[in-house]
Amino acid sequence: MSDELLFMDESEDEAVGDRSNWKVLIVDDEPEVHAVTKLALSDFVFQDKGIEFISAYSGAEAKDIFLRHNDIAIVLLDVVMETDDAGLQVAEFIRNEANNHFTRIILRTGQPGQAPERDVIINYDINDYKSKTELTAQKLFTVVIATLRSYRDIIVIEENRQGLEKIISASADLFSIHSLENFIDGIVQQLSSLIGGTQDAAYITSAVAGPKPIDNNESSQFYIFSGKGDFAEREGQTLDEVLDGQQLASCNKALEEKDIVYQDEYLVAYCNSKTVNGSLLYLSGLPRKLTATDKHLLQIFSQNVQIAFDNVLLTKDIEDTQREIVERLGQALERQMGGGKHIQRMTMICELLGREYGLAKEEINILKLAIPLHDVGKLKIPEAILLKPGQLSEEEKEVVRHHTEFGYQLLKDSRRPIIQAAAKMARDHHEYWDGNGYPQGLKGEEITIFSRIAALADVFDALQARRVYKEAWPLQKVLDNIQAQRGKQFDPKLVDILIANKDKLEAIALAYPDDLDME
Amino acid sequence: MSDELLFMDESEDEAVGDRSNWKVLIVDDEPEVHAVTKLALSDFVFQDKGIEFISAYSGAEAKDIFLRHNDIAIVLLDVVMETDDAGLQVAEFIRNEANNHFTRIILRTGQPGQAPERDVIINYDINDYKSKTELTAQKLFTVVIATLRSYRDIIVIEENRQGLEKIISASADLFSIHSLENFIDGIVQQLSSLIGGTQDAAYITSAVAGPKPIDNNESSQFYIFSGKGDFAEREGQTLDEVLDGQQLASCNKALEEKDIVYQDEYLVAYCNSKTVNGSLLYLSGLPRKLTATDKHLLQIFSQNVQIAFDNVLLTKDIEDTQREIVERLGQALERQMGGGKHIQRMTMICELLGREYGLAKEEINILKLAIPLHDVGKLKIPEAILLKPGQLSEEEKEVVRHHTEFGYQLLKDSRRPIIQAAAKMARDHHEYWDGNGYPQGLKGEEITIFSRIAALADVFDALQARRVYKEAWPLQKVLDNIQAQRGKQFDPKLVDILIANKDKLEAIALAYPDDLDME
Repeated sequence: MSDELLFMDESEDEAVGDRSNWKVLIVDDEPEVHAVTKLALSDFVFQDKGIEFISAYSGAEAKDIFLRHNDIAIVLLDVVMETDDAGLQVAEFIRNEANNHFTRIILRTGQPGQAPERDVIINYDINDYKSKTELTAQKLFTVVIATLRSYRDIIVIEENRQGLEKIISASADLFSIHSLENFIDGIVQQLSSLIGGTQDAAYITSAVAGPKPIDNNESSQFYIFSGKGDFAEREGQTLDEVLDGQQLASCNKALEEKDIVYQDEYLVAYCNSKTVNGSLLYLSGLPRKLTATDKHLLQIFSQNVQIAFDNVLLTKDIEDTQREIVERLGQALERQMGGGKHIQRMTMICELLGREYGLAKEEINILKLAIPLHDVGKLKIPEAILLKPGQLSEEEKEVVRHHTEFGYQLLKDSRRPIIQAAAKMARDHHEYWDGNGYPQGLKGEEITIFSRIAALADVFDALQARRVYKEAWPLQKVLDNIQAQRGKQFDPKLVDILIANKDKLEAIALAYPDDLDME
Repeated sequence: MSDELLFMDESEDEAVGDRSNWKVLIVDDEPEVHAVTKLALSDFVFQDKGIEFISAYSGAEAKDIFLRHNDIAIVLLDVVMETDDAGLQVAEFIRNEANNHFTRIILRTGQPGQAPERDVIINYDINDYKSKTELTAQKLFTVVIATLRSYRDIIVIEENRQGLEKIISASADLFSIHSLENFIDGIVQQLSSLIGGTQDAAYITSAVAGPKPIDNNESSQFYIFSGKGDFAEREGQTLDEVLDGQQLASCNKALEEKDIVYQDEYLVAYCNSKTVNGSLLYLSGLPRKLTATDKHLLQIFSQNVQIAFDNVLLTKDIEDTQREIVERLGQALERQMGGGKHIQRMTMICELLGREYGLAKEEINILKLAIPLHDVGKLKIPEAILLKPGQLSEEEKEVVRHHTEFGYQLLKDSRRPIIQAAAKMARDHHEYWDGNGYPQGLKGEEITIFSRIAALADVFDALQARRVYKEAWPLQKVLDNIQAQRGKQFDPKLVDILIANKDKLEAIALAYPDDLDME
């Protein structure tokens, strides 16, 4: 950062965030020294802040105060108090016991013989040495203002340094986010440790992460990717739908200048990106007026936000590609059998069942990625049987049943969690809760939860959709049939969840209708 | 960080990394002032460092020096020189023109009337005000040592602050690495900006990222995941194969204490991880003795290294899963046709051809992920034809040819680059360079490079391997046949590459032999 940013002009009142007065500790066993000091500095002002005096009348008292205050700017320290070197011991204590290296120590001695200047200045980490006789009111004024300047210089850099440490820790958390769902929450949480949190926040991008099939990964339209507060309900909307003229102008300015635009009520931070146009972080309802340090931190943070976003996008892109490949292969089978969107609906239903059943997010993710593979064994079943309209003979049924074992053989012995899950699901998704299924006749919780979920979702969707061998059924008829198999074919808990979520099942069916005209 | 780390004891010689003397600039138009000042401070030492005097005899000269030196600790500044306020103008210049807020300014005036103490100390950002009469040798000594302390305090924090900025920028780069190949290079490069580079470096982990099929993602064995210098050739080896007793002990200590272990010749930094046991960064051949600031930065950096590693591992894991799924499905077809490892060999051959052809890393990655899908259209070709031993009739050949169009239909209209590439490759991998292929009769560079590569790799491997309809051919016979099709069936440039890499082709065949006993 440039020094201009770090060190604002002294006349600017925001150079140091804290608005309280400078704390000056007077340590002296003579009460009149306290009185004279306060008088001499009574109208003292430096950078719009006066002095808050704290008094200690012994070395012991001074040490005690230092354990309670870490924001003392200056200590005016007498040497001879309860002992001949009580003041020197306080100096030692401040640096080595209280570990305070910021407070400026000015030694004031009435008996220079007790603490010879040359020895003391060399051996103690103090910042000035004055004999009381030389300290006129003017000299006291000079030494206090000069010393406060040093203290301020240190504090400005130190605040910035601490801010950078917060950035590093915030960024570490940011870079550990792997899901877009948590993204804006993560940003807002980290921002709160930097500048104290915001009410409303929006992450605005032109990168397309949704399922819209367009030519490249980027449209020219900026939209609310993710929002908190006022923006929570506006996700997916374009900027001009959400923001007013002045806000839009600020966004455009931020994009043009690749910088942060500050307004009274809000700010728009440009987030630089290697892969896309760059994004914007829009924040309003800030907790306080931002200092120069805040602004500097915000600038660094915005850069990291974008890198983190790019990373999450990359992960999502690979996962989506994987899902799409498997779905397309799955559909190659399903399509022949009459239904176009069985896999998509089944994935949604499995997600619903898994979530309500209480599976962890990570498990649901594996389940969703594995689901399209559950019928992969059908690759080895002759099409003549798979596509036969009407009832199959017992012999033909036996052939079809082998798809579970075929699928398992194809997928087993992988070290990838998704393929491991898919292998078990391929084998076990025709097992029954009561043990009357195939191929192994497993029962109850011997069947993995993934397979129990897949079994229910598979049958549910097959019943409600049209197949080459049957017409579509009304939802209520499907649920009645499922209910009749509660505790027999299906896990009773899952059946209850399914029936309790009729609305959501209808929504899924509407969102993914079979396209029966498809080739 | 704790202040203990930031501020080492004054007696420790490593508190400030720089070993040169303190620079003190004397600005005065009277030469004898320079002489007297140097005499008074002739044996001056603070924190093992003496003083390097720089002299300026006018305000103009002083300004000039400030533009060339940004590491002046103290300026002893006369007021009245070429003008009555020349010194004050220098003070103004230092802060506002040279933007230097670290150098401590001590004003020394012979005519206090020209620069009244109270006005000057308030209005100029100076750090002390002395009349020359009060500046005895002892007072000069005191003010210089006290002022150097302030300067040191500022520089220590500032160096740390700058280090943190470097960490942030280094980490931003680190988090932009998406491939394990670049990982150790990235670390070493970033380290060099922090502590000046190392000769030898190893990243040591127990996380298994290779293709070894074991039950979980972690063994208890720590091994060299990636290395530079001495460790470049040791990748994959376990710790006890590479390190000696004392080095091993240091590694174990770092793991136990979850901290950095420093030895004279090397250091081992523990890298904390959320997902695995934690990893180690082993560095030797450090460019210099590390300062307290270095060590602090190293600690923060190590944490970020691990997060970045976890991220790269996650990306790799998803990609590997994707590749494995597609390969398994591809193999389901190939296996029936007699060959078990056709897809793996073809992937390796395509990578070889793509690299030598000059494709970008990112393109090769897409190619490798898309390759297993090139024959996906065969899902729709009756097995009776696919698995028929011996020659096919013209009618049957015509049916088989449709697999290109089927595959394209299955994969087309995706917005995922991998699936887009796979769609074109599925359609075009039977096109000929001379235009005599199918389905469209494209010729030369009308056929995408991916499809030209796939076409050559596919035929090459089919010839050299056993199939239901033919025996395996010796490599030279295969290459002779390919050579005969140079510029006819195949891109001549690719044929040349293939023939020039006979050794590598043999190695690939050895690494992935067909398992003919497979089910």
